[in-house]
Formats: sequence, C-alpha cells, structure tokens
Amino acid sequence: MAESNAILLISCIDRPGIIARVAGHLYQLGCNIITSDQHSDAEDGHFFWRIHFESLKLPIAELARELDASVPSLLPWEHLHWRLYDGARRDRVVIMVSRLAHCMMDLLSRHWFGEFDGDIAGVISNHRNLETLAQPFGVPFQVIEVSKANKAAAEQALLERLEALNADTVVLARYMQVLSGDFLQAWSKPIVNIHHSFLPAFAGSRPYKQAHDRGVKLIGATAHYVTEELDAGPIIAQDTIAISHRDTVADLTRKGRDLEVAVLARAVRAHLNKQVLTHNNRTIVFE
Amino acid sequence: MAESNAILLISCIDRPGIIARVAGHLYQLGCNIITSDQHSDAEDGHFFWRIHFESLKLPIAELARELDASVPSLLPWEHLHWRLYDGARRDRVVIMVSRLAHCMMDLLSRHWFGEFDGDIAGVISNHRNLETLAQPFGVPFQVIEVSKANKAAAEQALLERLEALNADTVVLARYMQVLSGDFLQAWSKPIVNIHHSFLPAFAGSRPYKQAHDRGVKLIGATAHYVTEELDAGPIIAQDTIAISHRDTVADLTRKGRDLEVAVLARAVRAHLNKQVLTHNNRTIVFE
Amino acid sequence: MAESNAILLISCIDRPGIIARVAGHLYQLGCNIITSDQHSDAEDGHFFWRIHFESLKLPIAELARELDASVPSLLPWEHLHWRLYDGARRDRVVIMVSRLAHCMMDLLSRHWFGEFDGDIAGVISNHRNLETLAQPFGVPFQVIEVSKANKAAAEQALLERLEALNADTVVLARYMQVLSGDFLQAWSKPIVNIHHSFLPAFAGSRPYKQAHDRGVKLIGATAHYVTEELDAGPIIAQDTIAISHRDTVADLTRKGRDLEVAVLARAVRAHLNKQVLTHNNRTIVFE
Amino acid sequence: MAESNAILLISCIDRPGIIARVAGHLYQLGCNIITSDQHSDAEDGHFFWRIHFESLKLPIAELARELDASVPSLLPWEHLHWRLYDGARRDRVVIMVSRLAHCMMDLLSRHWFGEFDGDIAGVISNHRNLETLAQPFGVPFQVIEVSKANKAAAEQALLERLEALNADTVVLARYMQVLSGDFLQAWSKPIVNIHHSFLPAFAGSRPYKQAHDRGVKLIGATAHYVTEELDAGPIIAQDTIAISHRDTVADLTRKGRDLEVAVLARAVRAHLNKQVLTHNNRTIVFE
Repeated sequence: MAESNAILLISCIDRPGIIARVAGHLYQLGCNIITSDQHSDAEDGHFFWRIHFESLKLPIAELARELDASVPSLLPWEHLHWRLYDGARRDRVVIMVSRLAHCMMDLLSRHWFGEFDGDIAGVISNHRNLETLAQPFGVPFQVIEVSKANKAAAEQALLERLEALNADTVVLARYMQVLSGDFLQAWSKPIVNIHHSFLPAFAGSRPYKQAHDRGVKLIGATAHYVTEELDAGPIIAQDTIAISHRDTVADLTRKGRDLEVAVLARAVRAHLNKQVLTHNNRTIVFE
Repeated sequence: MAESNAILLISCIDRPGIIARVAGHLYQLGCNIITSDQHSDAEDGHFFWRIHFESLKLPIAELARELDASVPSLLPWEHLHWRLYDGARRDRVVIMVSRLAHCMMDLLSRHWFGEFDGDIAGVISNHRNLETLAQPFGVPFQVIEVSKANKAAAEQALLERLEALNADTVVLARYMQVLSGDFLQAWSKPIVNIHHSFLPAFAGSRPYKQAHDRGVKLIGATAHYVTEELDAGPIIAQDTIAISHRDTVADLTRKGRDLEVAVLARAVRAHLNKQVLTHNNRTIVFE
Repeated sequence: MAESNAILLISCIDRPGIIARVAGHLYQLGCNIITSDQHSDAEDGHFFWRIHFESLKLPIAELARELDASVPSLLPWEHLHWRLYDGARRDRVVIMVSRLAHCMMDLLSRHWFGEFDGDIAGVISNHRNLETLAQPFGVPFQVIEVSKANKAAAEQALLERLEALNADTVVLARYMQVLSGDFLQAWSKPIVNIHHSFLPAFAGSRPYKQAHDRGVKLIGATAHYVTEELDAGPIIAQDTIAISHRDTVADLTRKGRDLEVAVLARAVRAHLNKQVLTHNNRTIVFE
Repeated sequence: MAESNAILLISCIDRPGIIARVAGHLYQLGCNIITSDQHSDAEDGHFFWRIHFESLKLPIAELARELDASVPSLLPWEHLHWRLYDGARRDRVVIMVSRLAHCMMDLLSRHWFGEFDGDIAGVISNHRNLETLAQPFGVPFQVIEVSKANKAAAEQALLERLEALNADTVVLARYMQVLSGDFLQAWSKPIVNIHHSFLPAFAGSRPYKQAHDRGVKLIGATAHYVTEELDAGPIIAQDTIAISHRDTVADLTRKGRDLEVAVLARAVRAHLNKQVLTHNNRTIVFE
C-alpha cells in the first residue's frame, strides 16, 4: 500500500459542486486532503484550486492514470486545465547569473539549508567570476559567453545545456542579457526573473538610477515570469524598502540587494511548491 | 427560493474524508462554496475549517435545522464543535473606552466607511470627554463611572447596558479598567482588547515607558481576547513599528497610536468576519 | 530676556566652514542648538541644513533682524537660501476634500490629539456630505462647488477663501479636482497632495484599478507637493502594503485608505515641522 | 599635505556651545565636516555626537595628538568621553558560529560584496561542518571545541586566537555557547550577538518554540552587545516578521533565518561605521 504526497492544480469556469465532486472522488480513491486553497476570479468567473493530499491507497502513478480518465468527466466545463504533481519528484532548477553574486549565493545557500522543494541542477553564467563562490555547494558552474556577434549561438548552447541538465525551471538571478523571443519559444518552460524595481515603475535598465532621479522614497524589487515583452510578465512577488535623500545610487544598490534576494527567494519557493497559477498575465499565489 | 450567505465553522479531530463529506452534503443541499479555509494542528491532530457559502435552495434558518440534525452524524468524531452564522445577521459591537480617543474614533470611522461586517451598537466610557467626538456617528454614548468603591455596581450597570444594547461582542478600545473575573463569567461573550505592547513583552501598565527603559528598537501592539489572566488571552493580531534613540516616551505614545488603531481594527474585522477560531489559548485566523 | 525656539533652514553651495561659522555665530547670539540635521548632495555640491535651537537672549523677532544682516556675509556663496521660522508661530492649514472622509477625518483627529505643529484653519469641499463628520472638531467647513462650467469662478472663490482663512498650506486630502496652473501661480504657497499609488507607477485616474489590472503584489500611496505637471511634483513620503490575488478593486480601496492616511499624515507632519526642503524636484526630509 | 577621513565620537553633559566650540576648532585645524549627528538625552542631560570629517591639512595621527591636548579644555564638562577613529584603519572582525550556516554565510557574503567598513579576520566555530562553505571567502576557519569539561581551557584558546587574529570585534553569528563572565572581562572589547527573538520576550533557549507556544503573530530577532547578564545587553537592532497559525516551529526557524541575517548585518554595519554609542544599557544608533 503506497503512501505518498501529490499536488493537484485545477482551473476551470466556476460552477457549484466542484469541491464536492473532486473532494468526494479523491476520498473514494483513498486520498486525504492536507491543504486546500481556492480562488474565484470575480471578473471572469474562473476558479482556481490547489490541493495538497496524501494518497493512502494508490501509488501516485496509478492515481495519475485514474485522474486522467476521471477528471474531465467530473468537471465537464469550459477552460478546464489541471495537472498532478508527484510529491516525490523534485523540480530541477538552473540558475543563470552574470557578475553579481548576491542572488546566486542566496539561492545556493537556501538550497543548502533545505528550504526549497527542488534541486539546483546547475549554474550558467556569461562570466567566470562567480565560479569559486559556487564551488562549495557542489553544483556545476558553466560559462556561456554572450556577445552581440554570438547571441544566437550562445542561446543555442544555453538551450542544449538546459536540456543536458534536465532543467524544469530557469531562474534569472541578475542575468544581464535579454533572452530572445526565439529562445523563449524553444525553451517553453518557466523562467523566473528578478527585476530591481517595483514594476511597472522603472522598467528597463538602471532602475536604481531612475529611482534616484525621480526622488522616490522607496525602492522595490519584482520577481516575475519572463514573457516576450520585457519586464511585463506575470508578477509573482514584490516588495519595497524605505530610502531617504541620504541614499546615493550606490546605497540604493546595496539596500536593493537585500530586497532582490528576499523577493526572488520567495518567488522561487512558491514556484517550486506549485503554489503559483497564472491567468491573464496575473498570478494566483497560494502561499 | 431563498438565496443567501452563511459561514460554517467546524473543528474536530482530523480524519480523512471530512471535506468530502461536508462539501458533498452542502452540495446536495444546494449550497455553493465561495471560500474555504482549513488548518490542521500538527501537534494535537485537530482540524479547523471555515466555509463561506451561498444557499441556493434553502433559507438559512431551514438549512440550520437540517445541519443540526446531519452534522453530528457526518462527523462522528471527538471534539466536534461547529456553528453556522447567518450572513444576514450582523453582529452588534459595543466599544468601551476611557479618555483616549484614537481607537474609538478609528472604529467609528471604519464602521462609517462600511468596513465592518457588523454594527456598532453603542459606546460606553468611564469618562464623558469623548462624547462630542462620537456624536456624528449616531451611536449612543453612555458614561458608567468606575471607582474602587463602586466597581461591583459599575460592572453590574455595564452588564445591564450590554444586555440592553443586545451586544454580541465588546471591544476594549483603550479602556483603562481591568474587568473582574466575575464580570467575565457573567458576560461570557467575546471581548477583544488592544494592549500597547508586543505581548508577552511589557505586559501590565505603562508599556511604552517599559519599552523606552529597556531600549528596544521597536514598539508593538497586540489585540487579544480577554481572559481572566491579564494580557494573557489568545492573540488575534500584532504588529510593530521601528523606533530610535530619538523617541521619547511621548513619541512612542504618538507612534503607538497608529499601531494600536491598525492592530485593533484588523482584529475586530477578522472577528466580525468569523475568521477567528481559538484553540489552546492560540488563535487560527483565516484572513 | 526672551526664551524661545526657532528653526533655521539653510541651503547653499557646500564649502568648508559653514557649520563652524553659523554655529559659532548662533552661540555668540546666545542660541543653544537642540537638533541639527544636514545633507550634502553628492551630485551638484549643494548643502542643506536644518537647525532647531532656542534663543536664550534675544526675542526671535530681534534675532531675525540680526540674521537678516549677518547670514549673507557669513555664507557669501552661490545659491544661498535661508529662512528662519519662529517656533511660536503655528502654520495654518486648510484641508480640501471631496466625498471620501478618511483623510480628512484622520487629519482632524490627529490635530485634535495634538500631533501637528500647526492648526487646521478650515475644510473646503466641493460636496456637502462630510460636513457633519467635521463638526465636532470645531473647524469651519465650506462648500465650493466645482463644475466644468464654473471652474474659473470656483478657483477664484477658493483663492478668496484661502486668503480669508489666512492659510499657509493647503492639503489635498483626496480632493478629486485638478487645480489649474493659473490657480497654482496665484496661490503660490505649498500644496500637499496624496495620490493613491506608488508614483511614478499608476499616475492619473483610478490607480487601484490600474494596479489590479497589472497584477501587482503591493499597492502604494504617495504624498507630494503639487506642481503644474500632474502627479509629478517632489515626493515627500511613500509607502506600500502587500496585496494578493484575493483582493478585488474594492479591497484595494479599503486597504489603500489606511496607507493614504498614514502617508499623508507623515508628510503633513514633516512639512509643518519644517523638515522638508525641495531641490531639483526631489525632497530632503529631515525626520 | 595629507587628505584623509576620520570619525569623532563625543559624549558629555549637554551645555550650550558644544557644537560651536568643536566645529570652530575643527575648522581652524583644516577639517571639513561631512556628516554630523547628535542626540541629547532628555532625561539625564547627556549629549552624544558623531562627526565624520575630512582633514584637509593635518595627517590623522597628528590631528589625534592635537585633539588629545585640546578637547578636554574645549569641553570642560562632566562625563566627557571622546574617541577619534582613523578612517584609514579598518576594524578586524572575528565571526563565531556553531552548526548553523546562515549568519556566517551572510556576513562573509556582505564582506565579499564590500558592504562593511571593516575586515573579517577569521571564523571560529565549535564544530567543523561549516568549514567548506567558508573556504571561498579566503578567511581562516578554526575549530575550538567546547564541552562542559573543557570550557575554561576552550575560552583560553579562544582568547589567544582572538589576540592572534588582532581582533577588534567579535560577532556571535548563532554561536550556541554562553561566554563566561571571566572571558568577557578578559576580552573586554565589543561582542555583538544575534538572539532569535524580539527581546525582552523569549529570552533564553528555544525562542521559536516559546513563540509558537504562546501563539504570537510575529517573530523577531535582536542584535545586542553581550554583557554578563544573558540576553540583556544594549540592543543595537531589532525587527519582526508576521507569522500565522499555519507556521510550525520549523517554519518559524526558516522565516527567522532571514530576520536574524538582516538584523545582525544591520548591527554589524552600524558598529563598524562607528554609528553606535551606548548609554545606560541602551544604544544611540546614528544610521
């Protein structure tokens, strides 16, 4: 008798009885719900549900086959999307970074502390300067240099490296290159980016300089999924910190590091926990 | 055919199938779940559930009779407690206050803005100085003076006033008298208090003075249910704010007002929304 | 021998010896510095100084005449601006408001608590609905209706009312009309506005709707001085609060009220304390 | 002609003319004040001053000799304490740690980023498990094992190691041993500790367990100077973070890591910047 955990994400048009039907069916299959989080979008009537449960009778693989057959008839409604995640399978994350160490170091440290429900499969950088810092964590560090001339080739190498690492998710931990639309389509899996402003304010380059010039009293950081439109994808997490007239751009950069690290870690954690659903370029985050 | 809202709070020993049983039963009764929040206490295996639903077929009164009959057999387990709240019935709150206006003014203002799912039935004070401020809100203001000599009589008058106002909940909005154990037993319904420290630090009197003397870098506020042990009841909400060496006790008092107001309002709102369950002198708050 | 307080604000090009010269001169005049805050702008070499002192020998009026004669020769440098504020003179503030009560109520309450170093001389609204709420505070409430047709006449009436109230500062406490460039030039004294977003994000109308549509995870509020360019004046204070996918535009409006109130009060307080200097469309805030 | 920076910390009984005298004297010596922060304790009339200046004429060593001679006659008042810090001399910090990596990793990372005005001279632990993680930072890692039996000898070894490293400051970065009064007297220089609660709440051992048991809605962290009384020394920095009923003790431990790291870094930074003065078991922090 297998005892194991799984997460079920469901979205569809909201109709009475969804919870009763699915909870009843899971119960009959010998599943015990551990946590359940739901959301209804009041504007377009979509329903979103995350169920974390343990399967007391069936192995998850068998349960998955059963649900493949039963869910569409249980929820015969428009816009049905659902996916079962086996709790025993850990996502493989690849960190991409340029010269700045803080986000990479933070993610590697948290992984080392056991904070993430996933594994860091590798680090890829367009520079070599952080290799030594990454070494104690036992994660392969590969340099793929990028220049205007070799961009297409570099993205091809990147793609191959991601496939070789069997990556599920890419995290741009202050990676300073813009990924092309061609790359995004070829890769097709989630990419989480950290932008060092409170988006949509100060999109684009040098946001701390922009913030200083405008004279704002807070700086921010935004973790979002990457889409083809720069700095415009679904936002997963954001935070701000107070600044004052005393703070130079260098001070903002220093204070911002703490913010970037915290916001990115929160987003990566939620993503790996399968707590994030996207809908109309927004996210539902079941933290 | 009545269409109406209700909230169902359930707690019992956690067993597989609780959600399936109750959700299935509610569905059969024509109810549609709007939000559902649950919690399992990992230490003692208790399960807590708050369901907000609309009853599409039965009037709430009829539904209540049905659940009276069916819930105990649906959930035949130890420690079962459950209660149905009719969404059409608004709780009646009585504010108790002494000389300081800020918490009373904030609660009356929020009520006026329509923030609370409840009504403020009256204000009771042991002083008359705030009567004018309360006047525009159209809420009766009554003075019940308290002295060492008349304490028992004053508490009796208080009890009668609360009954006359048909009160469900008392909010101590910086009421500077300690209510006796006799009063608490006689009244028996919820009392929410705001204490101006981050409990358990600085319980008792003059917490801002205590905080200043210790040289802490934050001050706090705590909203809690009143129990017989002073400042030791279940905590509903807390927050802190940064202070510095520049702040005198008078500055702490000023900064603390904002904190007290925010924390008390949050607690009162959660309480009136039936989002708070208590267990082992702690709270589960389904915000 | 008069004993009284004053605040001296100085800005000029930074040169060695400024503090020694002015502190030495004030000492010879019998003044004792209580607090001193300074800032140098690293980019353009400007120096900003706020000195709060007590004059132990001279009455402030006499001291003012002395400084009129001596400061320009003490600090014979470019871009010198300075102003002495007599601590005995309290600024007169006029609150302008439309239909929403929260900012007006908060300012009137804080004034009633004695938090502001200034007096509220009156409230002006383009609607009558808040008159009752303002009444207990003993502040005159005047309605000046504004329509497309009468805008110029209304602004003329507003100007006359501000002069009749002998106002020093106007606070737009969710006043929903845009003041014309002509009005701003005619009035010429400070106007503090609260905008319900984290500017520069979501300038213009309906910022909570804009924030909801973009799917941000924080909402903000910004208090700034009004300039002719809408929502683009020097920022005095800002803050943000976390939101989630659960929050509708109505929830953002409710949560935003607390933020608007806190940010506006902080800005008004700093302004009345003469803690705010402006420079290149930014502020130095000596809190 | 030397051009260099220094920080002057002064405390004494508050008297009119302190700023004029010292600022005038520094000006005559060819010094230009960059920042100046002051504080008067309203209760006992003590005055605290931090001046950051550049010496445009004299080398700092020569200036120091001049001030040794002149300061006592400039400020001939009770309780005079003052100290000049040469900006060219960087403090040497030794990190002490047990098995938990997060605080050590954070301090080493920040040092690597160049955030601290000081150098990390070494790490000392009573366990070997973190040695690999510390290696890329190029800081010597030494194990000094501690047991009940060898405590006195271990503290003697510790003292010798600190002297060998020429340490100015010790940072207890989750070092799980209590240092004896004998050690504290022998060492006599500053020790900064991080305690994982909002002191004075939950002093002593297992504060996250204590916090969970009490049902608080925030957890905190406190950085303080170590004194002979456990967890009772002058507080340098504190912060809190919201928690909920969902959080187990393990969750508090995880969330608390971020808090400990942030609060400790802030305290270490302020200490190394000579921004912290202590007075009556409280701190003045000129951030």
